[in-house]
Amino acid sequence: MKARVHVMLKNGVLDPQGEAVRHALGSLGFDGVEGVRQGKIIELDLTETDPGKAKETVTEMCEKLLANTVIESYSVEIA
Amino acid sequence: MKARVHVMLKNGVLDPQGEAVRHALGSLGFDGVEGVRQGKIIELDLTETDPGKAKETVTEMCEKLLANTVIESYSVEIA
Repeated sequence: MKARVHVMLKNGVLDPQGEAVRHALGSLGFDGVEGVRQGKIIELDLTETDPGKAKETVTEMCEKLLANTVIESYSVEIA
Repeated sequence: MKARVHVMLKNGVLDPQGEAVRHALGSLGFDGVEGVRQGKIIELDLTETDPGKAKETVTEMCEKLLANTVIESYSVEIA
């Protein structure tokens, strides 16, 4: 079973990496980019076969390791 | 108009960051994780209002800046 976790900085948290990308896009001549936010995707291959249990486990992984919940929000997708 | 780009390492390209996450999950007692791959999400806020043109522009951004197409694959979602 595959799980995909999206981790993004919370709104209001400064994102210098995204800001750098926005600036670089401007330098390359791409106008009309108002904002850029950069985040992480983590794809997990699990032996668990029950989608409910898998989601629960992955949520626990996010709380403990994958996301810094002080500044980041996450979402879990089971596929 | 919002666009979201997913950038992942191509299959076959070693992913030491993902491997480190897998190892850390194991140390925390999460068994049953067979593989981890880590990638990037880039969320763009565009002034463009035509979805077709937006997708075209973002694809060009990926080719020129956002993804290293030698080792990374990307997908573009317009929302």
